[in-house]
Amino acid sequence: MGNSFGERFRVSTWGESHGGGVGVVVDGCPPRLALTEADIQPDLDRRRPGQSRIVTQRQEPDRVRILSGTFEGLTLGTPIAMLVDNTDARSEAYTEMASKFRPSHADYTYQAKFGIRAWPGGGRTSARETIGRVAAGAVARKWLREEFGVEIVACVSQVKEIKAVVALEKLTLSQVESNMVRCPDGAAAKRMIALIECVRKAGDSVGGVVSCVARGVPPGWGEPVFDRLEADLGKAMLSLPASKGFEIGSGFEGVLLTGREHNDAFRMRAGRVRTPTNRSGGVQGGISNGEPLYFRVAFKPTATILIPQQTVTAEGRNTILKARGRHDPCVLPRAVPMVEAMAALVLADHALRHRAQCGR
Amino acid sequence: MGNSFGERFRVSTWGESHGGGVGVVVDGCPPRLALTEADIQPDLDRRRPGQSRIVTQRQEPDRVRILSGTFEGLTLGTPIAMLVDNTDARSEAYTEMASKFRPSHADYTYQAKFGIRAWPGGGRTSARETIGRVAAGAVARKWLREEFGVEIVACVSQVKEIKAVVALEKLTLSQVESNMVRCPDGAAAKRMIALIECVRKAGDSVGGVVSCVARGVPPGWGEPVFDRLEADLGKAMLSLPASKGFEIGSGFEGVLLTGREHNDAFRMRAGRVRTPTNRSGGVQGGISNGEPLYFRVAFKPTATILIPQQTVTAEGRNTILKARGRHDPCVLPRAVPMVEAMAALVLADHALRHRAQCGR
Amino acid sequence: MGNSFGERFRVSTWGESHGGGVGVVVDGCPPRLALTEADIQPDLDRRRPGQSRIVTQRQEPDRVRILSGTFEGLTLGTPIAMLVDNTDARSEAYTEMASKFRPSHADYTYQAKFGIRAWPGGGRTSARETIGRVAAGAVARKWLREEFGVEIVACVSQVKEIKAVVALEKLTLSQVESNMVRCPDGAAAKRMIALIECVRKAGDSVGGVVSCVARGVPPGWGEPVFDRLEADLGKAMLSLPASKGFEIGSGFEGVLLTGREHNDAFRMRAGRVRTPTNRSGGVQGGISNGEPLYFRVAFKPTATILIPQQTVTAEGRNTILKARGRHDPCVLPRAVPMVEAMAALVLADHALRHRAQCGR
Amino acid sequence: MGNSFGERFRVSTWGESHGGGVGVVVDGCPPRLALTEADIQPDLDRRRPGQSRIVTQRQEPDRVRILSGTFEGLTLGTPIAMLVDNTDARSEAYTEMASKFRPSHADYTYQAKFGIRAWPGGGRTSARETIGRVAAGAVARKWLREEFGVEIVACVSQVKEIKAVVALEKLTLSQVESNMVRCPDGAAAKRMIALIECVRKAGDSVGGVVSCVARGVPPGWGEPVFDRLEADLGKAMLSLPASKGFEIGSGFEGVLLTGREHNDAFRMRAGRVRTPTNRSGGVQGGISNGEPLYFRVAFKPTATILIPQQTVTAEGRNTILKARGRHDPCVLPRAVPMVEAMAALVLADHALRHRAQCGR
Repeated sequence: MGNSFGERFRVSTWGESHGGGVGVVVDGCPPRLALTEADIQPDLDRRRPGQSRIVTQRQEPDRVRILSGTFEGLTLGTPIAMLVDNTDARSEAYTEMASKFRPSHADYTYQAKFGIRAWPGGGRTSARETIGRVAAGAVARKWLREEFGVEIVACVSQVKEIKAVVALEKLTLSQVESNMVRCPDGAAAKRMIALIECVRKAGDSVGGVVSCVARGVPPGWGEPVFDRLEADLGKAMLSLPASKGFEIGSGFEGVLLTGREHNDAFRMRAGRVRTPTNRSGGVQGGISNGEPLYFRVAFKPTATILIPQQTVTAEGRNTILKARGRHDPCVLPRAVPMVEAMAALVLADHALRHRAQCGR
Repeated sequence: MGNSFGERFRVSTWGESHGGGVGVVVDGCPPRLALTEADIQPDLDRRRPGQSRIVTQRQEPDRVRILSGTFEGLTLGTPIAMLVDNTDARSEAYTEMASKFRPSHADYTYQAKFGIRAWPGGGRTSARETIGRVAAGAVARKWLREEFGVEIVACVSQVKEIKAVVALEKLTLSQVESNMVRCPDGAAAKRMIALIECVRKAGDSVGGVVSCVARGVPPGWGEPVFDRLEADLGKAMLSLPASKGFEIGSGFEGVLLTGREHNDAFRMRAGRVRTPTNRSGGVQGGISNGEPLYFRVAFKPTATILIPQQTVTAEGRNTILKARGRHDPCVLPRAVPMVEAMAALVLADHALRHRAQCGR
Repeated sequence: MGNSFGERFRVSTWGESHGGGVGVVVDGCPPRLALTEADIQPDLDRRRPGQSRIVTQRQEPDRVRILSGTFEGLTLGTPIAMLVDNTDARSEAYTEMASKFRPSHADYTYQAKFGIRAWPGGGRTSARETIGRVAAGAVARKWLREEFGVEIVACVSQVKEIKAVVALEKLTLSQVESNMVRCPDGAAAKRMIALIECVRKAGDSVGGVVSCVARGVPPGWGEPVFDRLEADLGKAMLSLPASKGFEIGSGFEGVLLTGREHNDAFRMRAGRVRTPTNRSGGVQGGISNGEPLYFRVAFKPTATILIPQQTVTAEGRNTILKARGRHDPCVLPRAVPMVEAMAALVLADHALRHRAQCGR
Repeated sequence: MGNSFGERFRVSTWGESHGGGVGVVVDGCPPRLALTEADIQPDLDRRRPGQSRIVTQRQEPDRVRILSGTFEGLTLGTPIAMLVDNTDARSEAYTEMASKFRPSHADYTYQAKFGIRAWPGGGRTSARETIGRVAAGAVARKWLREEFGVEIVACVSQVKEIKAVVALEKLTLSQVESNMVRCPDGAAAKRMIALIECVRKAGDSVGGVVSCVARGVPPGWGEPVFDRLEADLGKAMLSLPASKGFEIGSGFEGVLLTGREHNDAFRMRAGRVRTPTNRSGGVQGGISNGEPLYFRVAFKPTATILIPQQTVTAEGRNTILKARGRHDPCVLPRAVPMVEAMAALVLADHALRHRAQCGR
């Protein structure tokens, strides 16, 4: 189980790397939202392999079809099913995966859990699974934008030790899309691209950090004590492949401050309660306070590398794995739309939940 | 809503700081587990205020009573209700809270969400709410220990800039309890205690990091793609008051490594598939791999300080807040049992979920 | 598990017949609803044993206390915990239950499921469990009445073969409460009371039917395809002890009509879409249509009788059970507030769910 | 929302009558179950229109494809997505539905709830929606049969006033399939068929009762107090289109008996606790007792008739609706596999839930 997310804006993804396709069902989307494939495809294009020379060269068009839930271009309030066909299924490239567990992949744990696994392309553990998330996230984003004016923008803020300078408050999509690594700091972006190309040639991989901001979230979203907004954001991000850490607002750095230095004073601004500083990251006590939400997600270096590695066989013998073919030297550029999508899913869900209990 | 956690080992907490008490209902606990108040009280004692000179001096005995769900000392499989009375309710000490929003607290956001709040003692946002979590966590821990031999131990590994050296693999409860700050590195502990005392006298506060390990978790727990074990652990930790960050395994530091450096090779050891290194933190693809789980949680400095701060009134006027009375200069020592409890709740829930689908 | 009901107006009951009490936690109730014990106690008084000579003579005052979730007489939006103490615990009266399974009770199935059971008073299977439902239902009813003008009234419409003539459209609480059997048809009520008294003297028991109407439900509540309003009402009613059947609108009788006879034509009335007939029972396609909801619930004769019965021991030997002491010859009068409470819980939950998705 | 069913064996259906198809996602199915389309198609064939002269003559092949969740003929433990294309989409036959609400259909309530509806073919309210249920139910049934030997068989036991004599204890699929009305009582079946043909010619419709038995359910399934087995069965059945009533065991007839007459005595038989009578219908206190489960479901006459009816337009004017084309004079024969499917979904879900908490 575990393939559904959200309570009121609920998405259920399905699909393996090699099979009949991958897809998602969205249940709970409000009715009468204008929605066609054209609202969804752009985010899928930002996610897809082969989009630039620094990501995997797997070629997948990933064209989405909406199979249900809309009528004459509007959502019906019924489940929205979306499907992307599988193509480029060179399973022969993976035959070694049938018998050997790839280090730091999920081959072993899936086998241990289920007693079976779809080894071609990694099966369910393939990053193709995130197609459904990104498609559903595009629906959530559109609704949030139209209903509340919420804007969600993410970018790559670090690749290995290269850190970018990013002003999240004003970050725009066009800044993010201005280069293939999706880092708005042009100088850092150049160094990141050079590093990724170098690493790719070495058959190695690198990780990094994606930063994200959500502007326009009204005060009041989030449901303590367990379903705090940051808790659900954290879960969403830590459910993404290769993520190893999440922090909101001041995060791990915040522990270096005292309370006096860390607290966000309240001030009235234009008739609204505001905080001139925002170490809280837009969330206090698990509920949005009207300031921009900002958070960071750590992604480990991709597990697939083209360097021989020690591993074991499914039968329990020590062996060496030498992966071949294409690999993704850095998942970060493609993780940006995934992070945005998951943020949108959390916010749309909490918007609906808040409206249920509090009527607005 | 949002006051329940877990799908199969499901806990629901209730209660405000000042009112009829605080409590928890645990639904789904397996039957025939030996359970009395004596199994629960020790963890509550580690959580309670007034336990040492470096935490808040509020005096609350926090005696737990089991009201249902057991018979002749064994669990019945029916809901286990546990109750702790409220005492020491000096609401006069908080009267300024009735009219002013405390900076970086949840006063404003609760008011914005619900249009009402129980201001005495912070109401539902009081740390007393975690009593129910710790009580439920004690039940989960006992079951995990008896059924699987799982051991969960947390400790304070950082206070402000003071970092401890901690060997999580072998960390024991007695090491953790050897000093009042719950840091097993004696030298660091002394410095932490001195710092907290100094900060307390200044009316200020500090934050830090709690590290946690869970040993004995069998391979196979966790439900991708959304309910990955690390995603649910992250959510659990980020639902704790004052937490701002979570990382598992190599976490944010892991982004500095390449894939070749980061990957955990597989090797056969004593007939089992093992990883000599553990940068994964015991989880691969969202599923436990049989290695120790380890993770870290960042807690910001406590929001309540005894220093005048800028804020606004409930009516929307700028003003100054000068808190009086007792305050908690550092939540870290008391956060240790909370982190352990939440880890136990996640693991017990996933143990039951795994058993449902996979039969073991 | 299975001790929670509802998705957005969510209640969780706990408690055994003999133990620290019985109670309920309500999560999701909208904030700022005026609520005190005085809103809840009247329904509990209609439910409690010993209220008249035709129900069990167990004497339990069943005084409710609200422990959390309100402040200065208003709901906070946080969990509302309510507690009723256990008293009159003559467990010696039940000692035979320790070793013998009572026929058509849940003794055997609880033992088979859990491998343990709290035999005194039936433990969790006692009708005391419904206290939490009735208390939570009173909260839901008040909110439905104040927010939407929804009125829910139930009555006893049949005891054994004695059927009452009931005009559900105009049924009032005072009609229902005009006699101890809660049947608004005075002539039938007299015969029912005489029958129950006769049956009680014989140590036997009888069942019957409770009919219920909900007026003022706006069009639009209910969530097909699975969470149809009638499906959730049916589940709610079939979760009550001793219930064996549920029907809505024309129900089982409706199968005797043809489509031409059964269909409810639409007509405009006072600017609204109405159906002059109401064989649908207020629900079409799983969604309320603005007409009164009406449904019926069958309750079997109470299982506890004072007549020797064949049964088996917990060790698996055939034996005879001769129950002693007090028994409830007819659960129907006390089932009336239970049916109303469960209807209120379903409707409040769907009101909130509808508001989440559709904004009203 | 409301398009998912079950907690551990969880199905989510999607799709409108006219659109990209209809489908279902099954999450939580145990791994390593042999499963191909050949396991599912037979039940879909029993559900599909055009299968005999007494059901609707709409021609739909309804070929199912499994898109995910299996590998080399075995389930993976990951979501199983199944898809059936839409064909025969003569939307012109329905154009009157665009402007007029069909009596006792869901046109009006969908419009009232969502402010929009897919009028061609009834959209989401079409019986095509049940394709997903039947496909998922076939998976559940196979698992229940292989894992526990559970057998689920339903049949038509009443059409309008024609009642069949059915021995549920020994009812077999071949008996049910021996005639096109799916009634094992051959004499009654003939009369039913004659009645349905007569009614069809008149452009009218009839309803009836489906009876169902589940044999081989072990003692212990069901989760009181709310998720009693009969409560979840009732919900499942009442979620089927056109159902208006549900009863288990003695049901509404049981209220005519006294407790002495109704109680099922326990006796030891072949070392097991058994009840020679089975008025309980296999469930006591919400938990299966090892006896056959049996229950009945009332279906109203189909709402679509070819006789002019009073109704209103979407703009709120009184008018007359004269439906044309094909109609389904009696849904009962096609409801049989739907009832079996929903029963299988409830039982599989409770089997997994029981295993989670109780380990078997």
